[in-house]
Formats: sequence, structure tokens, C-alpha cells
Amino acid sequence: MRHVATRLAPHVLRTPTVDWPSRLPANIAELYVKLECLQHTGSFKPRGALNCMLEQKQLDSASLERGVVAFSAGNHAIATAWSGRALNVPVKVVMPATADPARIQRCRELGAEVVFGQSIEELMARVDEIRAHEGRVLVHPFEGVSTIEGTACVGLEICDDVPALDALIVPIGGGGLIAGIASAVTHLQPGCQVIGVEPEGAQGMTTSLANGAPLARVSVDTIADSLGAPLHLPVSYSLVERHVSRMVRVSDESLRVAMRQLAEDMKLMVEPACAATLAALQGPLATELSGRRVAILACGSNIGLERWWRLACPA
Amino acid sequence: MRHVATRLAPHVLRTPTVDWPSRLPANIAELYVKLECLQHTGSFKPRGALNCMLEQKQLDSASLERGVVAFSAGNHAIATAWSGRALNVPVKVVMPATADPARIQRCRELGAEVVFGQSIEELMARVDEIRAHEGRVLVHPFEGVSTIEGTACVGLEICDDVPALDALIVPIGGGGLIAGIASAVTHLQPGCQVIGVEPEGAQGMTTSLANGAPLARVSVDTIADSLGAPLHLPVSYSLVERHVSRMVRVSDESLRVAMRQLAEDMKLMVEPACAATLAALQGPLATELSGRRVAILACGSNIGLERWWRLACPA
Repeated sequence: MRHVATRLAPHVLRTPTVDWPSRLPANIAELYVKLECLQHTGSFKPRGALNCMLEQKQLDSASLERGVVAFSAGNHAIATAWSGRALNVPVKVVMPATADPARIQRCRELGAEVVFGQSIEELMARVDEIRAHEGRVLVHPFEGVSTIEGTACVGLEICDDVPALDALIVPIGGGGLIAGIASAVTHLQPGCQVIGVEPEGAQGMTTSLANGAPLARVSVDTIADSLGAPLHLPVSYSLVERHVSRMVRVSDESLRVAMRQLAEDMKLMVEPACAATLAALQGPLATELSGRRVAILACGSNIGLERWWRLACPA
Repeated sequence: MRHVATRLAPHVLRTPTVDWPSRLPANIAELYVKLECLQHTGSFKPRGALNCMLEQKQLDSASLERGVVAFSAGNHAIATAWSGRALNVPVKVVMPATADPARIQRCRELGAEVVFGQSIEELMARVDEIRAHEGRVLVHPFEGVSTIEGTACVGLEICDDVPALDALIVPIGGGGLIAGIASAVTHLQPGCQVIGVEPEGAQGMTTSLANGAPLARVSVDTIADSLGAPLHLPVSYSLVERHVSRMVRVSDESLRVAMRQLAEDMKLMVEPACAATLAALQGPLATELSGRRVAILACGSNIGLERWWRLACPA
């Protein structure tokens, strides 16, 4: 794992883990926040994207000259565009036609070519076509060993910065982030529970675990758009099954409250996905983590000021 | 200086200095932000207040049993109340009757007794009375060696975290913060310029330096209320005169723009005073700091969400 961190170090920021500076939520004894929202491009996503590209470069450097392809409506698209620019690799991103125009614009500014699809099926079909015809390497938003080794570095940094945690709370979209973090924490701080959070309106991993297999199709209805993965996949699923202690769910209303509280207490203006861990700490986990030493992950944030205000401070 | 840092360490947070994660403002080569806004109580103020109390305790521990007194409309009042609670010292704060009710409430929650005055003259008179009749020790918002040794630790931490800076930009209210930081930086990184920022509507230190003596009365008209000190005083003034390389001024409009940019690029929702250093970097310092390695201080933030929105995102 350390070799991956070393490989990524010239490109990513080593984000700080800070003390919660204010009155503690619930009856938590000590609370730390990993500020991965201060990562380049505003989310943890460059860690996986860069590691995929660097791994591929090592395996077959010529293949990268044909470029990479990614699909995403948001953070992963921007992160892949940014990573391609950093490594001088051509990037094509397939985005839903309904994606936030500011995000599409950002990908283009970073030098990526953007192509569009309507449904998730059409997006995937475009990606398959591009891989087949252009020989581009897929940079997956959450699946695969390279992606997950990249996200594992977030766990490594937390463990290095805060010894002897009782619990670490991590949000789940596709599951690549928690898969990496939980793998790292299991090795480095086996006494620390890793707890996953899903929105009530996107509980695909919870259902997958109940079924014993990753869901091929997840219905999504939540304000936490970055946590709404359309499906789950075997590598990340199996790591979650093995290393994640338990799962909890949070309502959209509790996400709004947590967004407001992160602004008031931590001065952070973050998207709903980023507030999920605080919502879990104050809601379903409040009793069981009482008196414990806990870290939460602020996984990223790309949200316009208007949308933030509308969600966190409705009239 | 290290002995002060060691003395304060059990009580204050060692706030991180982070890389600017996004496109760099102006043509800056490298930009770092000291996140002192994540300090306990939301500003750097506990550093000075705690150090005053701890110094006094060492000199004459019995005197502290009579308690301390402070005057402030905001951050310093809350910080003194908080520090008193941390050290088990009774606190009385003299606040303007017009102070934000949420701040008054916060001081009371922290166990402080709050008394009110109208004009600055009346506030000072109340403080003098309380010192005389109750034998309380004054915890000054910006003046005095103990206060300034406390704020110097902010400079110490920045120098420890980021070697070889070309410039560090610090906001000026009374001047105690920059006096401490500049004293530290002069010793630790003599090659680093320390640059002071005042709002155009509260440029008391600039005028004091032009006059060659601290102004006894400053007229204040700015949205950056935390930078509106009513007067300047000799200890902090003389350190600024000696150690600060230069001064710049920023408009209220540029503070609003910087507040918005800190939200967009750093996810930080901060008060106008806290945005002053970014405003200076992008405005009056943009040309001369081009290509340099620069740190800015995010000195603190206690602002309600409504007021933030009204200032940063006017309709």
C-alpha cells in the first residue's frame, strides 16, 4: 500500500485530518474529520483515477498514448480529466446529457473531450464502443484493484494521523472508496470499525449485502447525487463484505441538517454526499458510538453556491 | 517562543496549513492556506487569551481566582469565555449592547458573565471599574506581550509546516495577530515578507504607520467587523513597525468576491475578515507576488449563514 502512496504523492494532496473544533455532536468523546474535500478537483476521485493511469503506464506505457475513457456525471469525470492533464494522457468522458453544465465545462477546460448519452445503458454502450474502436483504457469510477488501491491511501493517511480510532465512518456510492479505506484500516488499525453510510434513497450496497451479491441495478432517489451509483460490482463488493463492520442509512432531511452543521461548526460548504458521515454519526450511530474516538470522512464537494443554499437553508 | 507553544498545546488545536486545491489565483506559483478558522471557538483568539491567563497564573496564581475581564463584540469575547472555562477561571465580558445576540448567548453558555455598554468609551470605563473594584485581570483583545506571544504560535506553525515562503499575508484588526506572527516569521524565515491587510474602511494601522505613532481613535466603516479595532496601542504597533514588510488595503467589494471564492474553491464559508488575505492576494498584491510561494491566513470565522449569504451572494 505504501508504494501506491509514494507513487501518487507527487500528484495528490495529502489532506489533513483535523479535530472537530466545536461542541461535539452526540456524546462522542473525540471526533476527527478527514478533509478530503480539499483534494485537487474537490473530491477523493483523483486518487483512483491517477492510480489506474500510473498502473497502466507501468504495465504497457504505449497503451496510454491512445488515451483513457471514463463515465460519470460529476466528480469522477472532472477527476479523470484533471488526472489526464497531470499525466499528459488524452481523456474522453461520457456524461449524461443532463449533467450540470458547470461540470461539463470544467471537464473541457481541463482538456477532456466530452461525449453524451441519455440512459445509463446508453452511457455504458458508448464507453464499450470507445474502448473497442479507439483502444482507450477504461478508468472506472469505483471498481477494480487499481482504483481501490488509490482510495486505500485515504485510509492509510487517516491511520497515520490518528492512532487508536474506535470507528471510522465512510460514505458509499459505488463502494470503491470504502473498499480501499476498509482494506487499509483492517491492516493498520484492526481495532477500528469501518462503518458504511448510504442514503435511504440509494441503498444499493445494503441490499447487495443482504442478497449476498452485488446488485446489477440500483434505483436512486436522493439529494446525495454523488452517492447514487447505478450498480455494484464484484471487487469492491467483496472487499466491503469482508472489511466493513456495518452499514447504516441516513435520510435526505438528516443530510440537510448535517450540511448546515458543517457550515456552522466547521465553516465547510459541502455537497450532501460529503455530509453523510456526520448525519450517520448524529443519527443511527449516536448511541453506539457514545464515548468513542471517531473519525468521519468529508469525501469531497462540488456543489454550486445556489444549490447548497437551497438544500441546506430552505426558506 | 517554543515554550509558549508547549504551554498552549494541551488547550489549542494545531490547525493545518493546506495547499490551495484548485486553480491558483493570480499568477501565484504555490499557495498555502493556514486554516486557523478551524481553531476552537472559530478564531485564533484563544491563543492570546489562554496565554494571558497561563502567564498570569505563573506570576501570581491567586490573582486569577478573582477572575478576568475582557471587552469585545465578538470573537475575543467568545474566546475568553471559552479559555476561562478551559482553565477554570471566572470570566466577565463587556460587550456592546448592539452585539450579535448569538454571540452574547454563546458567551453565557460558556459560563461567562456578560455586561453591556453603549459607546467604546463606556465599554472601556466599565472595564476599568471592574478591574479596580473586583481585582480582575484584563485579557486584552490584541495588546500586550502575553497576547502577542500567543498569536506568535500561529506564525511558528506556518513556518514549521511550509519552508521557504516568499510571503505571508495576515489581516490586521488591532494588530496583535500580525505582531505575533511577524515576530515569529522574522526569526524563523527571515526571507519571508509578512504583509498586512486592512479593509479600506478600517485602515487604522496604515495611518498609524504613516503618522509614526498608534492612532488613539480609528473610524470604522467596513463589512469586515472583526478587523474594525477602535484604536491602536504601542506594543503591537511597534512590532508591526519593525517586522511587517508592507501594508495593503482591500475594498468591501473585493472581500465579498473573496468570500465567494473561498466557498467555491476551498469549500470554506467564512466571515469577511477571514477573506481579506485572499482579497489582497488577488488585488493589490497580484503583480508583485506573481511566481512566488505564498501563504495566506484564514484567521477565523464566526458568521451566521444568513449574513454570509447576504454578503457573498447578494441577489
